[in-house]
Amino acid sequence: MRTLDEKFLDSKFVYDGRLLKVYSDRVLLPNGKESFREIVKHPGAVAVVPVLDNGDIVMVRQYRYPVGDTMLEIPAGKLDPGEAPEACVIRELAEETGYVSGHIRKLTAIYTTPGFSNEVIHIYLATDLVMTEQNTDEDEFINVETYSKEQLKEMVVTGVIQDAKTIIGLLLAGL
Amino acid sequence: MRTLDEKFLDSKFVYDGRLLKVYSDRVLLPNGKESFREIVKHPGAVAVVPVLDNGDIVMVRQYRYPVGDTMLEIPAGKLDPGEAPEACVIRELAEETGYVSGHIRKLTAIYTTPGFSNEVIHIYLATDLVMTEQNTDEDEFINVETYSKEQLKEMVVTGVIQDAKTIIGLLLAGL
Repeated sequence: MRTLDEKFLDSKFVYDGRLLKVYSDRVLLPNGKESFREIVKHPGAVAVVPVLDNGDIVMVRQYRYPVGDTMLEIPAGKLDPGEAPEACVIRELAEETGYVSGHIRKLTAIYTTPGFSNEVIHIYLATDLVMTEQNTDEDEFINVETYSKEQLKEMVVTGVIQDAKTIIGLLLAGL
Repeated sequence: MRTLDEKFLDSKFVYDGRLLKVYSDRVLLPNGKESFREIVKHPGAVAVVPVLDNGDIVMVRQYRYPVGDTMLEIPAGKLDPGEAPEACVIRELAEETGYVSGHIRKLTAIYTTPGFSNEVIHIYLATDLVMTEQNTDEDEFINVETYSKEQLKEMVVTGVIQDAKTIIGLLLAGL
C-alpha cells in the first residue's frame, strides 16, 4: 500500500471574509512534488433531527442564497468558539424552532466537502421536545414545518430534499 | 407564510484561486435590510456507487488535505465545462478505479454546503462493471479498495465513513 499523505510546507491567509476564511497551503505530494491546497476553514457545526412524541419530525425552511432557493432542512448551526456540540444542539434547536429537547443522542459526524473545507457537522437525534418560543438571529428568516416520517422518506427518495446533512440525519434516524 | 427570499443587489469577485472562486454578494433581506453573502462558486460534481456483480462495492481512499487524513469515499470528481453528469460519471469511475460501467442510474443530487457554496453533487449507481486500467491525474493519489455491503453498512453506522456524499450514496444504494 503506497503512502497517500501530503505534508504541510507553509500557509497563506488569502481571503478574510465575514464568514469565509480561505487559506492557500503549499504541500509536498507523495511523489515528492509540490502543490497548493486551498481550504475554507470552518468552525464546525451541529445539526439535529427533532422527533416529536407522535413520531413527526420538526424541519426548518430557509432561503439559501448560494442555491438561489429555499431549502427544507433539519435545524443546524455553527459552533460558537469553545462551545460543546451538545450545548450547541440544544441552543440552535431552541433558537430556530422554539423546541427544547430533554434528550439528545449523537448519530454521526460528517465532512461536507473534504476536498476544499474542514467543515464537520455533528448530527444528533433529539427527543422529549417541549415547545417554548422561536428566537432566531435578527438576520435569520426561518419557517418551522412539521412532517411525518413517511412524507420525509418520500421527499428524500424523490430528491425533493437535497441538503446533505438533512438526508444523512433523516436516514440515520431510521426513516 | 412570510417570504424568505433574498434579492441580489451586486456581486464582488473577492478571491480568484486555482480551485476556489469566492464572491461576496450584497443582498436585500426579507426585512428590507441589506446584508452580504459570501459564496464559493463550484462547477458541480458527480459521485458514483460502483456495484460489482457479486454485490461488493468499489471504494477509493485518498488523502484529504483539509481534513488532515485519508478518507474512504465513493469515486467522484468535478464536472468539466459543458460535460454531462452521466459522461462525467463514466470518465471519473474509469480514471479513479479502472472500472468501466455498462449501466448507470441516478440516485439523487445533493447540495453539500448550501450555507456557503453552490456545490451540487449528482450521485449515481453503476453496475455491469468491467475492469480496465486506473488512470488518475498526475497529482492524484488514490488507492482502490473493495468492501462488502455489510462491511460498509457497519462503517457508516459506526461513523468510520464520514464523507457526506459517500454516506448518502451508500444508504440510497440500499445498504
